[in-house]
Amino acid sequence: MQQIIGFVLELDKLKGVTRKTRPLGLERYENSAEHSWQIAMLASSLAPHAGAPVNIDRVVRMLLVHDIGEIDTGDTMVYTEGGWEERKAAELAAVKRIFGLLPEPQGAAFLALWQEFEHGETPEARFAHAVDRAMPVLLNLANAGQSWRENGVSHERVVRRIAQPIREGCPALWAYLEARLEEARQKGWFGA
Amino acid sequence: MQQIIGFVLELDKLKGVTRKTRPLGLERYENSAEHSWQIAMLASSLAPHAGAPVNIDRVVRMLLVHDIGEIDTGDTMVYTEGGWEERKAAELAAVKRIFGLLPEPQGAAFLALWQEFEHGETPEARFAHAVDRAMPVLLNLANAGQSWRENGVSHERVVRRIAQPIREGCPALWAYLEARLEEARQKGWFGA
Ligand SMILES: [Ca+2]
Repeated sequence: MQQIIGFVLELDKLKGVTRKTRPLGLERYENSAEHSWQIAMLASSLAPHAGAPVNIDRVVRMLLVHDIGEIDTGDTMVYTEGGWEERKAAELAAVKRIFGLLPEPQGAAFLALWQEFEHGETPEARFAHAVDRAMPVLLNLANAGQSWRENGVSHERVVRRIAQPIREGCPALWAYLEARLEEARQKGWFGA
Repeated sequence: MQQIIGFVLELDKLKGVTRKTRPLGLERYENSAEHSWQIAMLASSLAPHAGAPVNIDRVVRMLLVHDIGEIDTGDTMVYTEGGWEERKAAELAAVKRIFGLLPEPQGAAFLALWQEFEHGETPEARFAHAVDRAMPVLLNLANAGQSWRENGVSHERVVRRIAQPIREGCPALWAYLEARLEEARQKGWFGA
């Protein structure tokens, strides 16, 4: 029991890892814990539109653990260029440390989910990636491009980063976003 | 697609619903979105200790939706006395409104999960209740009784509110907490 309690208190730190998007109507930045909850809900709601049949419960479990490495590394915006290999190695070390706080079977199960997400090869992992990539875009589209403008991110860079994973994991979502992103471009909601 | 997007943007408001506990090491109060993520993770980790065999995926789905009514009603601390019937009616109206934003099958599925949690009659709902009640206690035990002291909550009131649901849903967790709560009492970590 003490190991599980130690683990869940360690997880508390994800509430302090801030991202670049702001929740709608709030001044502060979003954190990775509340983001993880929101994408789990988005995935559940979008499940009928997944690009291939998925076990939605495994998608949800994957999304709930996929950002936990940021407790040690912090969040890196998806549009950052370069440094990804070092970052991924650091995140792997982080999740091994954090999931290692748990009794072996639970820790190993969480690590396997985290790795399935990272490898991005199963239908569940692909759908999870699509949802994770789409969420900050949806917030930006509802927020006049807040994080794109604050960080000088162009329309072209957003499309380059998200088109393929979202199209693969959830084609109907990409069709929706492609049109909304073009409208946002015309409104001047991008930086650079 | 537009209905699902409208729903997930409505969910964004749960990030602005504050609770009485503070994340460890942070000055601000915790919000119900990050809390929902943390209890989903606690439930997954604790599953082998559930008081009866449970479908852990349904527990997780239940915990992810159980606080969504607070978007309209706000959070009420579990130690508040009175007003529960009105509050529960308001929460039901809220979740009907919010889940009603979705296409019928997904909205109905979320509402059924929310109601299963509220009724508290299945092994999954009982385990979910135990986890939900335990989480703020664990934070307080790691935080020198922060929300108990700020709100004048006594040891006796905490035990009266949480002993039965936690013992029923997760006996091993109650055995752990009972001893820690007594230590906290001796340290003067309660109000009143
Ligand atoms: Ca709750």
